[in-house]
Amino acid sequence: MSILRSWKNFFAKKTSSKPVKIVGSGKYVPQKVWLEDIEREYNIPLGWSAKHSGVVSKHWATHESVAFMASEALKMALTNSYLTLDDVDLIISAGSSYDYPVPHQAPLVKKELNISNKDVPAISVNSTCLSFVTALDLASSLLDNVRYKRIAIVTAEATRKTLNPANFETFTLFGDGAAAVVIEYCPDSTSCVVAADMITVESDAEHTIVRGCGIVNHPSLNNWNPELYSFSMNGRALIKLTSERLVPFLGNLFERSFIYEHQISWVIPHQASKMGLELFRKLCPDFGDKTISNLETHGNCIAASIPMALHDAISDGRIKRGEYVLLVGTSAGFSLGGLILRF
Amino acid sequence: MSILRSWKNFFAKKTSSKPVKIVGSGKYVPQKVWLEDIEREYNIPLGWSAKHSGVVSKHWATHESVAFMASEALKMALTNSYLTLDDVDLIISAGSSYDYPVPHQAPLVKKELNISNKDVPAISVNSTCLSFVTALDLASSLLDNVRYKRIAIVTAEATRKTLNPANFETFTLFGDGAAAVVIEYCPDSTSCVVAADMITVESDAEHTIVRGCGIVNHPSLNNWNPELYSFSMNGRALIKLTSERLVPFLGNLFERSFIYEHQISWVIPHQASKMGLELFRKLCPDFGDKTISNLETHGNCIAASIPMALHDAISDGRIKRGEYVLLVGTSAGFSLGGLILRF
Repeated sequence: MSILRSWKNFFAKKTSSKPVKIVGSGKYVPQKVWLEDIEREYNIPLGWSAKHSGVVSKHWATHESVAFMASEALKMALTNSYLTLDDVDLIISAGSSYDYPVPHQAPLVKKELNISNKDVPAISVNSTCLSFVTALDLASSLLDNVRYKRIAIVTAEATRKTLNPANFETFTLFGDGAAAVVIEYCPDSTSCVVAADMITVESDAEHTIVRGCGIVNHPSLNNWNPELYSFSMNGRALIKLTSERLVPFLGNLFERSFIYEHQISWVIPHQASKMGLELFRKLCPDFGDKTISNLETHGNCIAASIPMALHDAISDGRIKRGEYVLLVGTSAGFSLGGLILRF
Repeated sequence: MSILRSWKNFFAKKTSSKPVKIVGSGKYVPQKVWLEDIEREYNIPLGWSAKHSGVVSKHWATHESVAFMASEALKMALTNSYLTLDDVDLIISAGSSYDYPVPHQAPLVKKELNISNKDVPAISVNSTCLSFVTALDLASSLLDNVRYKRIAIVTAEATRKTLNPANFETFTLFGDGAAAVVIEYCPDSTSCVVAADMITVESDAEHTIVRGCGIVNHPSLNNWNPELYSFSMNGRALIKLTSERLVPFLGNLFERSFIYEHQISWVIPHQASKMGLELFRKLCPDFGDKTISNLETHGNCIAASIPMALHDAISDGRIKRGEYVLLVGTSAGFSLGGLILRF
């Protein structure tokens, strides 16, 4: 066993690990709303959300733009890193919510920050719910201490306007919020991105969808109606797909890393739904009490769920330096993604 | 001079060059439209477009979705590379047009391809007009011969529905189309990405904008009207910004590379506008007859302009193996980006 592990280490270390450290994180949430109040206001049976969605309270943006929430989270991440915007070489806005179709979201976040800077480049990345994980994976490959010493990743999601009160499942489930991290090239520490992987099963691309607003159902040809312009989810199909795909996916991810499942201290799954989290615990029983969840208090905040939970667990001292953390989730598309981080 | 160049080579080679080769490219354009006909149909003074926008003909999507155009270009790129989808380790959809707000564009492109495959991951990248350049830059950093041996980048833009006939400037300027490339890790060839850079001047983020459809002016609260939901451009401000920023930006880019301006064989600038291209030729007179333009026949196709011109120039033999090609442009945001490629 120990010989096997040595060989595993020998090969994997050469291929996967990126010397990257999260040096600070931040979070922003808009006004808190209680699902009990929402149920009353929208004639949803009392207790429906707690029972079916698993959400008791969440946050919904009122005046906040996507850029505003993102900039608040990013400001906090910079402050917590003892850094200024000028210390960062790239900003990645990672998420599915956007203030305008053009321009892309990242420069709007940077503008909202309103901090003078040396023209730091800003790009946007989207893999729906996995956007933050994708951006962390990309950023860890970019950091090279030459062109990129530090990269800021920021995710903000505003779902409120794309929810249809008649669709209880999505209306009670989705929440708003933002989180950000600053990561640094750091070869002299134990912190690293150990391994990351993603698969896309595009035959199931439309199980989670907002049909209206893009080119296919453009507003010029389709008057607004809540059904066309709101989130719809085929929960049953997503659960089936995850059941089939998650375990082999994680097996591959760990095979490509230099660590074993039992070395993981914390798991942050995407907060897809109550049923999704129950399924995760059933499929991966070994991660049971290591699983971090914010579904009950935040709902599913698309790509912001994972980094918000990460920020909270770093801030309250649950996640400690040197510990291995697994970020894992499904996303509309359909994709499965995972990243093992040594914090 | 030769000693200086040796030192430049010594340092730069260590830092920037990525052993990456474009092994195939593809393109798709929808139905051709003549600006003369458009001018007649929409009561625009005859000849306005040729004079002001520099566009004589372009292509506008009719039945085509963004994913359809992208998948056609990607199919051609795979065919021209003598590869199948299974030979590719990542698909990057790079652009600003989207069929649906959720899911992101890349899985939709992959679904439209309708080729069985080994769950190749698909992510989306957006830096508006510079999306393809950004994706090529990112992909060249990712290629490592271990996790990623080959990456497909595909860009498709559908502008037609976001154009207001009353705004002659944008209505005559923007066109639709798609292009794709497959790039490969290739340390044993002379092909490489020599250097790439980007700056974002976010104070000018809203000079090119589509205001309606996102979270700020959501269709649930704003009935469709052509002005709110269409492209608007502050051409004058963009020209001023480009005048101030382009030359120093290119100076920095070349300083970080191991080559000199005169070694460049071809320049493909983003086809921002007639005035934009004239300004480029004025600011960079040395690149004059090396400049490749498709504005007159394609219009400004946002992020698809550069890769469509690249594909055409590769296909007709203008760009030859071993030659240095500069891709450069501005994008809504406001960003300036450039990439030096050895084809």
